[in-house]
Amino acid sequence: MPEKFKVSRRVEFRDTDTAGIVHFSNFFAYMEQAEHAFLRELGLGVIHEFDGQKISWPRVNAQCNYQNAIRFEEIIDVFLTVQRIGTKSVTYGFEFFRGETPVANGSITAVCCLFEHGKHPESVAIPADFISAVKPYMVSD
Amino acid sequence: MPEKFKVSRRVEFRDTDTAGIVHFSNFFAYMEQAEHAFLRELGLGVIHEFDGQKISWPRVNAQCNYQNAIRFEEIIDVFLTVQRIGTKSVTYGFEFFRGETPVANGSITAVCCLFEHGKHPESVAIPADFISAVKPYMVSD
Amino acid sequence: MPEKFKVSRRVEFRDTDTAGIVHFSNFFAYMEQAEHAFLRELGLGVIHEFDGQKISWPRVNAQCNYQNAIRFEEIIDVFLTVQRIGTKSVTYGFEFFRGETPVANGSITAVCCLFEHGKHPESVAIPADFISAVKPYMVSD
Amino acid sequence: MPEKFKVSRRVEFRDTDTAGIVHFSNFFAYMEQAEHAFLRELGLGVIHEFDGQKISWPRVNAQCNYQNAIRFEEIIDVFLTVQRIGTKSVTYGFEFFRGETPVANGSITAVCCLFEHGKHPESVAIPADFISAVKPYMVSD
Repeated sequence: MPEKFKVSRRVEFRDTDTAGIVHFSNFFAYMEQAEHAFLRELGLGVIHEFDGQKISWPRVNAQCNYQNAIRFEEIIDVFLTVQRIGTKSVTYGFEFFRGETPVANGSITAVCCLFEHGKHPESVAIPADFISAVKPYMVSD
Repeated sequence: MPEKFKVSRRVEFRDTDTAGIVHFSNFFAYMEQAEHAFLRELGLGVIHEFDGQKISWPRVNAQCNYQNAIRFEEIIDVFLTVQRIGTKSVTYGFEFFRGETPVANGSITAVCCLFEHGKHPESVAIPADFISAVKPYMVSD
Repeated sequence: MPEKFKVSRRVEFRDTDTAGIVHFSNFFAYMEQAEHAFLRELGLGVIHEFDGQKISWPRVNAQCNYQNAIRFEEIIDVFLTVQRIGTKSVTYGFEFFRGETPVANGSITAVCCLFEHGKHPESVAIPADFISAVKPYMVSD
Repeated sequence: MPEKFKVSRRVEFRDTDTAGIVHFSNFFAYMEQAEHAFLRELGLGVIHEFDGQKISWPRVNAQCNYQNAIRFEEIIDVFLTVQRIGTKSVTYGFEFFRGETPVANGSITAVCCLFEHGKHPESVAIPADFISAVKPYMVSD
Protein backbone atom coordinates (compact mmCIF):
# COMPACT_ATOMS: atom_id res chain seq x y z
CA MET A 1 0.00 0.00 0.00
CA PRO A 2 1.37 3.42 -0.91
CA GLU A 3 1.66 6.15 1.67
CA LYS A 4 -0.85 8.93 1.26
CA PHE A 5 0.14 12.52 1.78
CA LYS A 6 -2.63 14.41 3.56
CA VAL A 7 -3.47 18.08 3.76
CA SER A 8 -6.57 19.53 5.38
CA ARG A 9 -8.11 22.86 4.69
CA ARG A 10 -11.20 24.79 5.68
CA VAL A 11 -13.48 25.97 2.88
CA GLU A 12 -13.28 29.76 2.53
CA PHE A 13 -16.27 31.89 1.64
CA ARG A 14 -14.69 33.06 -1.63
CA ASP A 15 -14.51 29.42 -2.78
CA THR A 16 -18.28 28.94 -2.69
CA ASP A 17 -20.87 29.87 -5.30
CA THR A 18 -24.56 30.74 -5.53
CA ALA A 19 -25.41 27.04 -5.27
CA GLY A 20 -24.02 27.21 -1.72
CA ILE A 21 -21.19 24.78 -2.44
CA VAL A 22 -17.51 24.93 -3.39
CA HIS A 23 -17.33 25.91 -7.04
CA PHE A 24 -16.23 22.87 -9.04
CA SER A 25 -13.22 24.69 -10.52
CA ASN A 26 -11.74 25.23 -7.06
CA PHE A 27 -11.09 21.52 -6.57
CA PHE A 28 -8.27 21.93 -9.07
CA ALA A 29 -6.74 24.72 -7.01
CA TYR A 30 -7.09 22.47 -3.96
CA MET A 31 -5.30 19.64 -5.81
CA GLU A 32 -2.48 21.96 -6.72
CA GLN A 33 -2.13 23.25 -3.18
CA ALA A 34 -1.80 19.62 -1.99
CA GLU A 35 0.76 18.90 -4.71
CA HIS A 36 2.83 21.90 -3.71
CA ALA A 37 2.64 21.00 0.00
CA PHE A 38 3.75 17.49 -0.96
CA LEU A 39 6.76 18.79 -2.88
CA ARG A 40 7.74 21.08 -0.01
CA GLU A 41 7.37 18.18 2.44
CA LEU A 42 9.79 16.11 0.35
CA GLY A 43 12.19 19.03 0.09
CA LEU A 44 11.81 19.10 -3.67
CA GLY A 45 10.41 22.57 -4.27
CA VAL A 46 7.77 23.55 -6.79
CA ILE A 47 10.61 25.05 -8.73
CA HIS A 48 13.17 22.27 -8.47
CA GLU A 49 16.83 23.22 -8.80
CA PHE A 50 18.76 20.43 -10.47
CA ASP A 51 22.40 20.79 -11.52
CA GLY A 52 21.89 24.55 -11.50
CA GLN A 53 18.90 24.33 -13.82
CA LYS A 54 15.34 25.26 -13.03
CA ILE A 55 12.76 22.56 -13.45
CA SER A 56 9.02 22.97 -13.05
CA TRP A 57 5.79 21.20 -13.93
CA PRO A 58 3.35 22.56 -16.50
CA ARG A 59 0.06 20.65 -16.54
CA VAL A 60 -1.05 18.56 -19.50
CA ASN A 61 -4.19 17.08 -17.98
CA ALA A 62 -6.46 17.65 -15.02
CA GLN A 63 -9.68 15.89 -14.14
CA CYS A 64 -12.12 15.55 -11.30
CA ASN A 65 -15.13 13.41 -10.38
CA TYR A 66 -17.60 15.04 -8.03
CA GLN A 67 -19.43 12.86 -5.53
CA ASN A 68 -20.74 15.06 -2.72
CA ALA A 69 -20.91 18.78 -2.19
CA ILE A 70 -18.84 20.65 0.38
CA ARG A 71 -19.82 23.96 1.86
CA PHE A 72 -18.46 27.06 3.55
CA GLU A 73 -16.44 26.40 6.72
CA GLU A 74 -16.35 22.64 6.30
CA ILE A 75 -13.01 20.90 6.71
CA ILE A 76 -11.83 19.00 3.67
CA ASP A 77 -9.10 16.36 3.77
CA VAL A 78 -7.10 15.88 0.60
CA PHE A 79 -5.09 12.67 0.11
CA LEU A 80 -2.39 12.60 -2.54
CA THR A 81 -0.75 9.57 -4.13
CA VAL A 82 1.48 9.22 -7.17
CA GLN A 83 -0.50 7.31 -9.76
CA ARG A 84 2.14 7.06 -12.44
CA ILE A 85 5.63 8.23 -13.28
CA GLY A 86 6.77 8.18 -16.89
CA THR A 87 10.08 9.35 -18.25
CA LYS A 88 9.01 12.96 -18.41
CA SER A 89 5.61 13.16 -16.70
CA VAL A 90 4.02 12.44 -13.35
CA THR A 91 0.35 11.86 -12.52
CA TYR A 92 -0.85 12.67 -9.02
CA GLY A 93 -4.10 11.21 -7.73
CA PHE A 94 -6.26 13.08 -5.22
CA GLU A 95 -9.10 11.96 -2.98
CA PHE A 96 -11.24 14.50 -1.14
CA PHE A 97 -13.10 13.61 2.05
CA ARG A 98 -15.33 15.46 4.50
CA GLY A 99 -14.84 13.22 7.52
CA GLU A 100 -15.78 9.75 6.25
CA THR A 101 -17.77 11.08 3.30
CA PRO A 102 -16.07 10.95 -0.10
CA VAL A 103 -16.43 14.32 -1.79
CA ALA A 104 -14.42 14.02 -4.99
CA ASN A 105 -11.43 12.41 -6.62
CA GLY A 106 -9.22 13.57 -9.42
CA SER A 107 -5.78 13.81 -10.94
CA ILE A 108 -3.23 16.16 -12.38
CA THR A 109 -0.64 15.12 -14.94
CA ALA A 110 2.36 17.40 -15.17
CA VAL A 111 5.41 17.37 -17.42
CA CYS A 112 8.93 17.93 -16.17
CA CYS A 113 10.21 21.01 -17.97
CA LEU A 114 13.44 22.92 -17.99
CA PHE A 115 12.96 26.67 -17.74
CA GLU A 116 15.76 28.81 -19.06
CA HIS A 117 15.30 32.56 -19.10
CA GLY A 118 14.14 33.79 -22.49
CA LYS A 119 13.60 30.28 -23.84
CA HIS A 120 10.47 28.21 -24.32
CA PRO A 121 10.13 25.52 -21.60
CA GLU A 122 11.57 22.20 -22.77
CA SER A 123 10.41 18.81 -21.51
CA VAL A 124 13.19 16.76 -19.94
CA ALA A 125 13.60 13.45 -18.12
CA ILE A 126 12.48 13.55 -14.49
CA PRO A 127 15.58 13.71 -12.24
CA ALA A 128 16.40 10.53 -10.31
CA ASP A 129 16.26 12.27 -6.92
CA PHE A 130 12.68 13.32 -7.62
CA ILE A 131 11.69 9.76 -8.49
CA SER A 132 13.24 8.25 -5.39
CA ALA A 133 11.69 10.90 -3.15
CA VAL A 134 8.15 10.29 -4.38
CA LYS A 135 8.46 6.49 -4.61
CA PRO A 136 6.84 5.72 -1.23
CA TYR A 137 3.67 7.47 -2.42
CA MET A 138 3.47 5.53 -5.66
CA VAL A 139 0.42 3.36 -6.31
CA SER A 140 1.66 -0.07 -7.28
CA ASP A 141 0.30 -1.60 -10.44
CA MET B 1 -21.14 17.92 -38.66
CA PRO B 2 -22.53 19.40 -35.47
CA GLU B 3 -22.86 23.12 -35.03
CA LYS B 4 -20.35 24.61 -32.65
CA PHE B 5 -21.36 27.32 -30.23
CA LYS B 6 -18.62 29.94 -29.93
CA VAL B 7 -17.81 32.45 -27.26
CA SER B 8 -14.72 34.65 -27.19
CA ARG B 9 -13.19 36.27 -24.18
CA ARG B 10 -10.12 38.29 -23.34
CA VAL B 11 -7.85 36.92 -20.62
CA GLU B 12 -8.08 39.09 -17.50
CA PHE B 13 -5.11 39.81 -15.28
CA ARG B 14 -6.69 38.05 -12.29
CA ASP B 15 -6.83 34.82 -14.32
CA THR B 16 -3.07 34.61 -14.73
CA ASP B 17 -0.47 33.23 -12.33
CA THR B 18 3.20 33.65 -11.51
CA ALA B 19 4.09 31.47 -14.51
CA GLY B 20 2.69 34.28 -16.66
CA ILE B 21 -0.12 32.14 -18.08
CA VAL B 22 -3.80 31.48 -17.37
CA HIS B 23 -3.97 29.32 -14.24
CA PHE B 24 -5.04 25.84 -15.29
CA SER B 25 -8.06 25.85 -12.97
CA ASN B 26 -9.56 28.83 -14.78
CA PHE B 27 -10.16 26.81 -17.93
CA PHE B 28 -12.98 25.15 -16.03
CA ALA B 29 -14.54 28.51 -15.23
CA TYR B 30 -14.18 29.40 -18.91
CA MET B 31 -15.94 26.15 -19.88
CA GLU B 32 -18.79 26.93 -17.53
CA GLN B 33 -19.15 30.45 -18.84
CA ALA B 34 -19.46 29.03 -22.38
CA GLU B 35 -22.01 26.46 -21.19
CA HIS B 36 -24.11 29.17 -19.55
CA ALA B 37 -23.92 31.42 -22.62
CA PHE B 38 -25.01 28.41 -24.69
CA LEU B 39 -28.01 27.75 -22.46
CA ARG B 40 -29.02 31.42 -22.56
CA GLU B 41 -28.65 31.43 -26.36
CA LEU B 42 -31.05 28.49 -26.61
CA GLY B 43 -33.47 30.15 -24.21
CA LEU B 44 -33.07 27.32 -21.73
CA GLY B 45 -31.69 29.11 -18.70
CA VAL B 46 -29.07 27.81 -16.31
CA ILE B 47 -31.93 27.28 -13.92
CA HIS B 48 -34.45 25.67 -16.20
CA GLU B 49 -38.12 26.00 -15.26
CA PHE B 50 -40.02 22.92 -16.34
CA ASP B 51 -43.65 22.31 -15.40
CA GLY B 52 -43.18 24.76 -12.52
CA GLN B 53 -40.17 22.86 -11.19
CA LYS B 54 -36.61 24.08 -10.97
CA ILE B 55 -34.01 22.05 -12.78
CA SER B 56 -30.28 22.66 -12.72
CA TRP B 57 -27.03 20.87 -13.50
CA PRO B 58 -24.59 19.79 -10.80
CA ARG B 59 -21.28 18.56 -12.23
CA VAL B 60 -20.15 14.95 -11.92
CA ASN B 61 -17.00 15.18 -14.00
CA ALA B 62 -14.75 17.83 -15.48
CA GLN B 63 -11.51 17.41 -17.37
CA CYS B 64 -9.07 19.37 -19.46
CA ASN B 65 -6.06 18.70 -21.67
CA TYR B 66 -3.60 21.56 -21.94
CA GLN B 67 -1.77 22.09 -25.21
CA ASN B 68 -0.48 25.65 -25.33
CA ALA B 69 -0.34 28.47 -22.82
CA ILE B 70 -2.44 31.62 -23.05
CA ARG B 71 -1.50 34.90 -21.48
CA PHE B 72 -2.89 38.18 -20.21
CA GLU B 73 -4.90 40.16 -22.76
CA GLU B 74 -4.96 37.42 -25.36
CA ILE B 75 -8.30 36.58 -26.96
CA ILE B 76 -9.45 33.03 -26.46
CA ASP B 77 -12.16 31.39 -28.56
CA VAL B 78 -14.15 28.63 -26.88
CA PHE B 79 -16.13 26.19 -29.02
CA LEU B 80 -18.83 24.09 -27.39
CA THR B 81 -20.44 20.92 -28.67
CA VAL B 82 -22.67 18.35 -27.00
CA GLN B 83 -20.65 15.16 -26.79
CA ARG B 84 -23.28 12.93 -25.26
CA ILE B 85 -26.80 13.02 -23.83
CA GLY B 86 -27.91 10.24 -21.54
CA THR B 87 -31.24 9.90 -19.79
CA LYS B 88 -30.18 12.12 -16.93
CA SER B 89 -26.80 13.57 -17.86
CA VAL B 90 -25.19 15.68 -20.56
CA THR B 91 -21.53 15.97 -21.53
CA TYR B 92 -20.34 19.17 -23.15
CA GLY B 93 -17.09 19.23 -25.09
CA PHE B 94 -14.94 22.37 -25.30
CA GLU B 95 -12.10 23.39 -27.58
CA PHE B 96 -9.99 26.45 -26.82
CA PHE B 97 -8.13 28.32 -29.53
CA ARG B 98 -5.94 31.40 -29.70
CA GLY B 99 -6.41 32.26 -33.34
CA GLU B 100 -5.45 29.06 -35.19
CA THR B 101 -3.44 27.68 -32.27
CA PRO B 102 -5.13 24.99 -30.18
CA VAL B 103 -4.79 25.87 -26.51
CA ALA B 104 -6.79 23.22 -24.69
CA ASN B 105 -9.77 20.91 -24.88
CA GLY B 106 -11.97 19.50 -22.19
CA SER B 107 -15.41 18.46 -21.05
CA ILE B 108 -17.98 18.88 -18.32
CA THR B 109 -20.54 16.22 -17.48
CA ALA B 110 -23.57 17.50 -15.58
CA VAL B 111 -26.61 15.73 -14.19
CA CYS B 112 -30.15 17.02 -14.56
CA CYS B 113 -31.45 17.61 -11.05
CA LEU B 114 -34.70 18.79 -9.58
CA PHE B 115 -34.24 21.41 -6.88
CA GLU B 116 -37.07 21.72 -4.39
CA HIS B 117 -36.65 24.14 -1.50
CA GLY B 118 -35.48 22.35 1.63
CA LYS B 119 -34.91 19.05 -0.18
CA HIS B 120 -31.75 17.38 -1.43
CA PRO B 121 -31.39 17.72 -5.25
CA GLU B 122 -32.81 14.69 -7.04
CA SER B 123 -31.61 13.49 -10.44
CA VAL B 124 -34.38 13.35 -13.05
CA ALA B 125 -34.78 12.62 -16.75
CA ILE B 126 -33.68 15.47 -19.00
CA PRO B 127 -36.79 17.28 -20.34
CA ALA B 128 -37.59 16.69 -24.02
CA ASP B 129 -37.47 20.40 -24.88
CA PHE B 130 -33.89 20.57 -23.62
CA ILE B 131 -32.88 17.62 -25.76
CA SER B 132 -34.43 19.01 -28.93
CA ALA B 133 -32.89 22.43 -28.33
CA VAL B 134 -29.34 21.13 -28.00
CA LYS B 135 -29.63 18.50 -30.75
CA PRO B 136 -28.02 20.60 -33.52
CA TYR B 137 -24.86 20.83 -31.40
CA MET B 138 -24.64 17.10 -30.79
CA VAL B 139 -21.58 15.23 -32.02
CA SER B 140 -22.79 12.26 -34.03
CA ASP B 141 -21.43 8.85 -33.15
CA MET C 1 -3.65 48.16 23.88
CA PRO C 2 -6.17 45.97 22.14
CA GLU C 3 -5.55 42.29 21.61
CA LYS C 4 -4.80 41.36 18.04
CA PHE C 5 -6.23 38.23 16.49
CA LYS C 6 -3.67 36.54 14.26
CA VAL C 7 -4.01 34.09 11.41
CA SER C 8 -1.18 32.91 9.18
CA ARG C 9 -1.47 31.51 5.72
CA ARG C 10 0.81 30.43 2.93
CA VAL C 11 0.33 32.10 -0.45
CA GLU C 12 -1.13 29.63 -2.95
CA PHE C 13 -0.19 29.60 -6.60
CA ARG C 14 -3.71 30.46 -7.72
CA ASP C 15 -3.49 33.72 -5.71
CA THR C 16 -0.59 35.09 -7.72
CA ASP C 17 -0.63 36.90 -11.05
CA THR C 18 1.61 37.52 -14.03
CA ALA C 19 3.47 40.19 -12.05
CA GLY C 20 4.65 37.34 -9.82
CA ILE C 21 2.88 38.67 -6.73
CA VAL C 22 -0.41 38.11 -4.90
CA HIS C 23 -3.14 39.77 -6.95
CA PHE C 24 -4.30 42.87 -5.10
CA SER C 25 -7.93 41.70 -5.01
CA ASN C 26 -6.97 38.63 -2.99
CA PHE C 27 -6.03 40.71 0.05
CA PHE C 28 -9.77 41.23 0.52
CA ALA C 29 -10.38 37.49 0.52
CA TYR C 30 -7.55 37.15 3.05
CA MET C 31 -9.18 39.82 5.25
CA GLU C 32 -12.47 37.98 5.12
CA GLN C 33 -10.85 34.66 5.98
CA ALA C 34 -9.28 36.31 9.06
CA GLU C 35 -12.63 37.85 10.01
CA HIS C 36 -14.36 34.47 9.77
CA ALA C 37 -11.63 32.74 11.79
CA PHE C 38 -12.00 35.49 14.40
CA LEU C 39 -15.77 34.98 14.64
CA ARG C 40 -15.33 31.22 14.95
CA GLU C 41 -12.69 31.74 17.65
CA LEU C 42 -15.14 33.84 19.65
CA GLY C 43 -17.89 31.28 19.14
CA LEU C 44 -20.00 33.79 17.28
CA GLY C 45 -20.39 32.19 13.88
CA VAL C 46 -20.35 33.93 10.53
CA ILE C 47 -24.07 33.34 10.55
CA HIS C 48 -24.93 34.37 14.09
CA GLU C 49 -28.07 32.88 15.63
CA PHE C 50 -29.68 35.36 18.02
CA ASP C 51 -33.07 34.72 19.63
CA GLY C 52 -33.80 32.24 16.85
CA GLN C 53 -33.04 34.78 14.13
CA LYS C 54 -30.24 34.64 11.60
CA ILE C 55 -27.86 37.56 11.56
CA SER C 56 -25.04 38.07 9.09
CA TRP C 57 -22.74 40.84 7.85
CA PRO C 58 -23.00 42.28 4.34
CA ARG C 59 -20.09 44.58 3.51
CA VAL C 60 -20.57 48.32 2.95
CA ASN C 61 -16.91 49.27 2.56
CA ALA C 62 -13.57 47.59 2.00
CA GLN C 63 -10.19 49.18 1.49
CA CYS C 64 -6.53 48.26 1.34
CA ASN C 65 -3.17 50.04 1.25
CA TYR C 66 -0.38 48.08 -0.40
CA GLN C 67 3.15 48.49 0.92
CA ASN C 68 5.21 45.50 -0.19
CA ALA C 69 4.58 42.59 -2.51
CA ILE C 70 4.17 39.00 -1.37
CA ARG C 71 4.84 36.01 -3.54
CA PHE C 72 4.02 32.35 -4.01
CA GLU C 73 4.76 30.14 -1.00
CA GLU C 74 5.53 33.02 1.36
CA ILE C 75 3.87 32.99 4.78
CA ILE C 76 1.67 35.96 5.50
CA ASP C 77 0.54 36.92 8.99
CA VAL C 78 -2.76 38.76 9.24
CA PHE C 79 -3.57 40.72 12.41
CA LEU C 80 -7.16 41.74 13.06
CA THR C 81 -8.46 44.41 15.41
CA VAL C 82 -11.89 46.00 15.78
CA GLN C 83 -11.54 49.61 14.71
CA ARG C 84 -15.05 50.78 15.42
CA ILE C 85 -18.44 49.47 16.49
CA GLY C 86 -21.51 51.56 15.76
CA THR C 87 -25.10 50.69 16.53
CA LYS C 88 -25.48 48.58 13.40
CA SER C 89 -22.01 48.29 11.85
CA VAL C 90 -18.54 47.07 12.71
CA THR C 91 -15.20 48.00 11.12
CA TYR C 92 -12.36 45.49 11.29
CA GLY C 93 -8.79 46.61 10.74
CA PHE C 94 -6.20 44.30 9.20
CA GLU C 95 -2.42 44.42 9.07
CA PHE C 96 -0.46 42.07 6.83
CA PHE C 97 3.14 41.15 7.55
CA ARG C 98 5.76 38.90 5.97
CA GLY C 99 7.96 38.34 8.99
CA GLU C 100 8.85 41.85 10.16
CA THR C 101 8.05 43.44 6.81
CA PRO C 102 4.71 45.26 6.54
CA VAL C 103 2.91 44.13 3.40
CA ALA C 104 -0.46 45.87 3.53
CA ASN C 105 -3.17 47.18 5.81
CA GLY C 106 -6.86 47.56 5.26
CA SER C 107 -10.36 47.41 6.64
CA ILE C 108 -13.80 45.95 6.11
CA THR C 109 -16.97 47.62 7.36
CA ALA C 110 -19.94 45.30 7.66
CA VAL C 111 -23.55 45.91 8.66
CA CYS C 112 -25.45 43.67 11.03
CA CYS C 113 -28.42 42.34 9.07
CA LEU C 114 -31.32 40.09 9.86
CA PHE C 115 -31.92 37.43 7.21
CA GLU C 116 -35.41 36.00 7.03
CA HIS C 117 -36.19 33.53 4.29
CA GLY C 118 -37.83 35.23 1.34
CA LYS C 119 -37.29 38.74 2.73
CA HIS C 120 -34.74 41.40 1.88
CA PRO C 121 -31.97 41.59 4.55
CA GLU C 122 -32.79 44.27 7.16
CA SER C 123 -30.14 46.13 9.16
CA VAL C 124 -30.57 45.72 12.92
CA ALA C 125 -28.74 46.71 16.10
CA ILE C 126 -25.68 44.57 16.83
CA PRO C 127 -26.54 42.08 19.62
CA ALA C 128 -25.00 42.81 23.03
CA ASP C 129 -23.25 39.42 23.21
CA PHE C 130 -21.41 40.19 19.97
CA ILE C 131 -20.22 43.53 21.31
CA SER C 132 -18.94 42.08 24.58
CA ALA C 133 -17.19 39.22 22.78
CA VAL C 134 -15.23 41.48 20.44
CA LYS C 135 -14.48 44.21 23.03
CA PRO C 136 -10.97 42.98 23.94
CA TYR C 137 -9.97 43.46 20.29
CA MET C 138 -11.31 47.00 20.09
CA VAL C 139 -8.89 49.82 19.32
CA SER C 140 -9.43 52.50 21.96
CA ASP C 141 -9.99 56.06 20.81
CA MET D 1 -17.99 67.18 -17.27
CA PRO D 2 -15.42 64.45 -17.79
CA GLU D 3 -16.00 61.68 -20.26
CA LYS D 4 -16.74 58.34 -18.66
CA PHE D 5 -15.27 55.16 -20.06
CA LYS D 6 -17.81 52.35 -19.93
CA VAL D 7 -17.43 48.60 -19.95
CA SER D 8 -20.26 46.13 -19.42
CA ARG D 9 -19.92 42.57 -18.27
CA ARG D 10 -22.18 39.72 -17.30
CA VAL D 11 -21.72 38.23 -13.85
CA GLU D 12 -20.21 34.73 -14.10
CA PHE D 13 -21.14 31.92 -11.78
CA ARG D 14 -17.63 31.65 -10.38
CA ASP D 15 -17.87 35.28 -9.20
CA THR D 16 -20.78 34.60 -6.86
CA ASP D 17 -20.73 33.23 -3.33
CA THR D 18 -22.98 31.32 -0.94
CA ALA D 19 -24.87 34.55 -0.20
CA GLY D 20 -26.03 34.40 -3.83
CA ILE D 21 -24.28 37.63 -4.78
CA VAL D 22 -20.99 38.69 -6.38
CA HIS D 23 -18.27 38.21 -3.77
CA PHE D 24 -17.15 41.65 -2.60
CA SER D 25 -13.51 40.99 -3.53
CA ASN D 26 -14.45 40.54 -7.19
CA PHE D 27 -15.42 44.19 -7.57
CA PHE D 28 -11.69 44.92 -7.45
CA ALA D 29 -11.05 42.50 -10.30
CA TYR D 30 -13.89 44.20 -12.21
CA MET D 31 -12.29 47.62 -11.59
CA GLU D 32 -8.98 46.36 -12.91
CA GLN D 33 -10.57 44.87 -16.00
CA ALA D 34 -12.16 48.27 -16.74
CA GLU D 35 -8.84 50.02 -16.15
CA HIS D 36 -7.08 47.68 -18.56
CA ALA D 37 -9.80 48.07 -21.20
CA PHE D 38 -9.46 51.84 -20.78
CA LEU D 39 -5.69 51.72 -21.31
CA ARG D 40 -6.11 49.53 -24.39
CA GLU D 41 -8.76 51.91 -25.75
CA LEU D 42 -6.35 54.81 -25.42
CA GLY D 43 -3.58 52.81 -27.04
CA LEU D 44 -1.46 53.03 -23.92
CA GLY D 45 -1.08 49.39 -22.94
CA VAL D 46 -1.10 47.95 -19.46
CA ILE D 47 2.61 47.59 -19.91
CA HIS D 48 3.45 50.96 -21.39
CA GLU D 49 6.57 51.20 -23.52
CA PHE D 50 8.16 54.62 -23.13
CA ASP D 51 11.54 55.47 -24.64
CA GLY D 52 12.30 51.75 -24.77
CA GLN D 53 11.56 51.30 -21.08
CA LYS D 54 8.77 49.26 -19.55
CA ILE D 55 6.37 51.10 -17.32
CA SER D 56 3.54 49.55 -15.34
CA TRP D 57 1.24 50.36 -12.45
CA PRO D 58 1.51 48.61 -9.07
CA ARG D 59 -1.41 49.44 -6.77
CA VAL D 60 -0.96 51.43 -3.56
CA ASN D 61 -4.62 51.72 -2.60
CA ALA D 62 -7.95 50.18 -3.53
CA GLN D 63 -11.34 50.79 -2.00
CA CYS D 64 -14.98 50.07 -2.63
CA ASN D 65 -18.37 51.12 -1.21
CA TYR D 66 -21.13 48.57 -1.65
CA GLN D 67 -24.68 49.81 -2.21
CA ASN D 68 -26.70 47.02 -3.79
CA ALA D 69 -26.05 43.38 -4.50
CA ILE D 70 -25.60 41.94 -7.98
CA ARG D 71 -26.24 38.36 -8.87
CA PHE D 72 -25.37 35.65 -11.37
CA GLU D 73 -26.12 36.51 -15.00
CA GLU D 74 -26.92 40.16 -14.33
CA ILE D 75 -25.29 42.76 -16.55
CA ILE D 76 -23.11 45.25 -14.75
CA ASP D 77 -21.99 48.56 -16.25
CA VAL D 78 -18.72 49.95 -14.99
CA PHE D 79 -17.93 53.64 -15.53
CA LEU D 80 -14.34 54.82 -15.17
CA THR D 81 -13.09 58.34 -14.64
CA VAL D 82 -9.67 59.67 -13.66
CA GLN D 83 -10.06 61.19 -10.21
CA ARG D 84 -6.55 62.50 -9.75
CA ILE D 85 -3.16 62.51 -11.44
CA GLY D 86 -0.11 63.30 -9.34
CA THR D 87 3.48 63.35 -10.50
CA LYS D 88 3.89 59.62 -10.09
CA SER D 89 0.44 58.23 -9.31
CA VAL D 90 -3.02 58.06 -10.81
CA THR D 91 -6.36 57.42 -9.09
CA TYR D 92 -9.17 55.92 -11.13
CA GLY D 93 -12.75 56.19 -9.93
CA PHE D 94 -15.32 53.50 -10.72
CA GLU D 95 -19.11 53.45 -10.55
CA PHE D 96 -21.02 50.21 -10.93
CA PHE D 97 -24.63 50.15 -12.11
CA ARG D 98 -27.22 47.46 -12.81
CA GLY D 99 -29.44 49.39 -15.19
CA GLU D 100 -30.35 52.54 -13.26
CA THR D 101 -29.54 51.02 -9.88
CA PRO D 102 -26.22 52.02 -8.31
CA VAL D 103 -24.40 48.90 -7.15
CA ALA D 104 -21.05 50.15 -5.89
CA ASN D 105 -18.36 52.76 -6.33
CA GLY D 106 -14.67 52.62 -5.67
CA SER D 107 -11.19 53.59 -6.68
CA ILE D 108 -7.73 52.26 -7.44
CA THR D 109 -4.57 54.32 -6.95
CA ALA D 110 -1.58 53.06 -8.92
CA VAL D 111 1.99 54.25 -9.09
CA CYS D 112 3.92 54.63 -12.31
CA CYS D 113 6.90 52.30 -12.06
CA LEU D 114 9.81 51.47 -14.27
CA PHE D 115 10.44 47.73 -14.58
CA GLU D 116 13.93 46.68 -15.54
CA HIS D 117 14.72 42.98 -15.66
CA GLY D 118 16.37 41.85 -12.45
CA LYS D 119 15.80 45.17 -10.66
CA HIS D 120 13.23 46.24 -8.11
CA PRO D 121 10.47 48.40 -9.69
CA GLU D 122 11.25 52.11 -9.33
CA SER D 123 8.60 54.83 -9.20
CA VAL D 124 9.00 57.43 -11.94
CA ALA D 125 7.16 60.50 -13.25
CA ILE D 126 4.12 59.66 -15.36
CA PRO D 127 4.98 60.20 -19.06
CA ALA D 128 3.42 63.26 -20.71
CA ASP D 129 1.69 61.20 -23.42
CA PHE D 130 -0.13 59.21 -20.76
CA ILE D 131 -1.36 62.38 -19.09
CA SER D 132 -2.63 63.93 -22.29
CA ALA D 133 -4.36 60.70 -23.33
CA VAL D 134 -6.33 60.35 -20.09
CA LYS D 135 -7.10 64.08 -19.68
CA PRO D 136 -10.61 63.95 -21.22
CA TYR D 137 -11.60 61.47 -18.50
CA MET D 138 -10.30 63.61 -15.66
CA VAL D 139 -12.74 64.83 -13.03
CA SER D 140 -12.24 68.57 -12.67
CA ASP D 141 -11.72 69.96 -9.19
